Amino acid sequence: MAPTALAPFQATSELTHSGIKHILTKTTPSVIANGNSTPSINELDASKLVFTRNLSPHAVPEPDSPEVWTQSKCSDHMVTCQWTSTGGWAAPHLQPYGPLQLMPTASVLHYATECFEGLKFYRGHDLKLRLFRPTRNTQRMLNSATRISLPAFDPDELQKLIETLVAVDGEKWLPKSRPGTFLYLRPTMIATAAALGVQKPKEALLYIMACCFPSFDTPGGTAGPSGNVRQQSSKARPGLKLLASKEDTVRAWPGGFGYAKVGANYGPSLIAQGEAKARGFDQVLWLLGEDCDVTEAGASNFFVVWRTGEGKLQLVTAPLDDKIILDGVTRRSVLELARERLGGELEIIERKYTMSEVENAAEEGRLLEAFATGTAFFIASVGSIHFRGKDLRIPMSEGVTGKYAAILKTHLANIMYGREDHEWGVVVNERQVDA
Amino acid sequence: MAPTALAPFQATSELTHSGIKHILTKTTPSVIANGNSTPSINELDASKLVFTRNLSPHAVPEPDSPEVWTQSKCSDHMVTCQWTSTGGWAAPHLQPYGPLQLMPTASVLHYATECFEGLKFYRGHDLKLRLFRPTRNTQRMLNSATRISLPAFDPDELQKLIETLVAVDGEKWLPKSRPGTFLYLRPTMIATAAALGVQKPKEALLYIMACCFPSFDTPGGTAGPSGNVRQQSSKARPGLKLLASKEDTVRAWPGGFGYAKVGANYGPSLIAQGEAKARGFDQVLWLLGEDCDVTEAGASNFFVVWRTGEGKLQLVTAPLDDKIILDGVTRRSVLELARERLGGELEIIERKYTMSEVENAAEEGRLLEAFATGTAFFIASVGSIHFRGKDLRIPMSEGVTGKYAAILKTHLANIMYGREDHEWGVVVNERQVDA
Repeated sequence: MAPTALAPFQATSELTHSGIKHILTKTTPSVIANGNSTPSINELDASKLVFTRNLSPHAVPEPDSPEVWTQSKCSDHMVTCQWTSTGGWAAPHLQPYGPLQLMPTASVLHYATECFEGLKFYRGHDLKLRLFRPTRNTQRMLNSATRISLPAFDPDELQKLIETLVAVDGEKWLPKSRPGTFLYLRPTMIATAAALGVQKPKEALLYIMACCFPSFDTPGGTAGPSGNVRQQSSKARPGLKLLASKEDTVRAWPGGFGYAKVGANYGPSLIAQGEAKARGFDQVLWLLGEDCDVTEAGASNFFVVWRTGEGKLQLVTAPLDDKIILDGVTRRSVLELARERLGGELEIIERKYTMSEVENAAEEGRLLEAFATGTAFFIASVGSIHFRGKDLRIPMSEGVTGKYAAILKTHLANIMYGREDHEWGVVVNERQVDA
Repeated sequence: MAPTALAPFQATSELTHSGIKHILTKTTPSVIANGNSTPSINELDASKLVFTRNLSPHAVPEPDSPEVWTQSKCSDHMVTCQWTSTGGWAAPHLQPYGPLQLMPTASVLHYATECFEGLKFYRGHDLKLRLFRPTRNTQRMLNSATRISLPAFDPDELQKLIETLVAVDGEKWLPKSRPGTFLYLRPTMIATAAALGVQKPKEALLYIMACCFPSFDTPGGTAGPSGNVRQQSSKARPGLKLLASKEDTVRAWPGGFGYAKVGANYGPSLIAQGEAKARGFDQVLWLLGEDCDVTEAGASNFFVVWRTGEGKLQLVTAPLDDKIILDGVTRRSVLELARERLGGELEIIERKYTMSEVENAAEEGRLLEAFATGTAFFIASVGSIHFRGKDLRIPMSEGVTGKYAAILKTHLANIMYGREDHEWGVVVNERQVDA
């Protein structure tokens, strides 16, 4: 089944798919049975935005300064929007960035009723501001929200809200004097109702913030929201060192929620991630099952380039159809660009593959590259994988990166920073918004 | 492997177990390798408690009033205690119950870095206040915290903090005029550091609150934090109606975290739970794997009483050793009491068992009872299970409950409410605490 497909309504099975369908259509089986119409509630509507300007704006930190490395410095404003099960979405609010108040009983603090997105906006070399494929993020946010029982919304309205924040804070926080830089956007939704019952959220808060982030894909990256890991250092990166997971630690499973960007995929992985780091590795390579299917690296998608026994050159990554891995925007873009621009050299394959296949390829000299992809740290080449007591070394032909990783990264960066005009790069016009 | 056992330190495996061990011993492999001593940080210490009395105390709602059914009304005070990775635990604070301030970037709102406990305190028929086996909750809280990379603490100190809250708010909120009533206690820990990096928490907040809860085990219960289920109604309960899960919705997985009381076990199950409820069922009976192993009902443990083909009467529940299910305090107490007091009649079995076994027993008239156990809704008999298009009916010999469920419930309630003097019932002395 395709990851976004919804199973047909069945009376007693496919609970998750049916539940999601009912959130999306805002109906329940009893409504369907009774033929009643859905009560009218307000949809998310960016045109209702209310703006309260920040009268105590902050200084913008220098790129790559220690403050940026804290990954905690946000721009002057944030978008917030409240939802209730009875009233739907209130008017969105563009307001000064600052703390949230939550009751200690709030659902999100107990039951992980939360989801998020990660995307960047870029100051192009042509001095324009761009988002990269934001519709992929807003659609995925909808998928994640419904999986975790949070309310549905029109993804286009979320995109408009993101664009408003970019338009208002972009000029100051990503100044034209700094082409080739970016800020990280974090749309988030949390269940806020103050009640301890384990039940579908009755109140929620959607919020969007823009945060100063370092470049993890240049020499010296460190931990970022897509699970990257490298210590800040002045040395060139020798490629990520991955530690393959064992059976005692599974990131995601069939029938679970590995495909959704929900908090529940992150917190439980931190213990293994921290342990891997303490042992000198950058990240965990998550394997699944007795066959050791390769799934994700940290919280990033994972690719290998190998030559088959028959001599074919292949770019291989895990598939989406079992819903184990995240449908990464960078993953998808790498696959699409590779098919379009490298299809003559490379076969592009999405399929289950095992650690034994990777091990055999490495031992027979057929493993050419491996890399991890994610929004925060972009495309990062992998230098070694520790698996069952052995270090599999992965050659990196271009110094600190593999050949195809470098080619794909250049193509993508050209689109993000406006060196190539492409439909994936969505220009956002800076504009004054009246408070 | 026993669920609480920690594997010996191994260089490249057992990441989760090693990570937990390092939190518990406050060491990392590099510290071990260098032979350095652990830097001195403050332990959780209840004796340092600072008390700020609530000068605007609230009215106590009537038992079973609508306000109680919201599961949001807490007592006048809460305990809070901050932790940082550099300083350890600050002095605990007994303070007025009220909202928390969190930055929008706080780890708990994105990565589900959170865990909790649920226990009750009881106003006995002898007018004493009691906790029920609180050491089981404080030890489990430690297990859950370390699994989700939150800091370790001495469980005895947590118990002292719980007892302080009970001592201060018990007299007013569980008055002697209402023997046989209880309040629900919710110790919670969340990661609070305002930074978007996916990493082990650097700051955390432990807090404890006491919340007014209805009795779910009397006729007319509704959804509660241990996954209870029944709609409020004036009718006698006919037993829970469970809907068996299908492969598309799996609660927990080997190598996952099903045994820990972390938020990540709850939010992802809400979509199926809500769907089951919308179809007229009370809760999901969570099955696992091709063989349909029976695990939990809702977020509660699940028991069956059946007669084997050979005529033996058995009380059966899923085992803890694969870490799929929660080590419930009520589950453990039911097993221990049944072994002690019903061992002559019943064989007490913890083992994997499948839905086919339950189905066969039901069809052959050998299935006598089924019940769910949890702190919030205690022991609730199950009347039917919908599985593969069929309703398996479960007889309930004693009207609204099964015979053994009723016996076990009476034994437990006698201990909780002081009708039986037992080491599981821990008396808390009401006392004045100076602000």
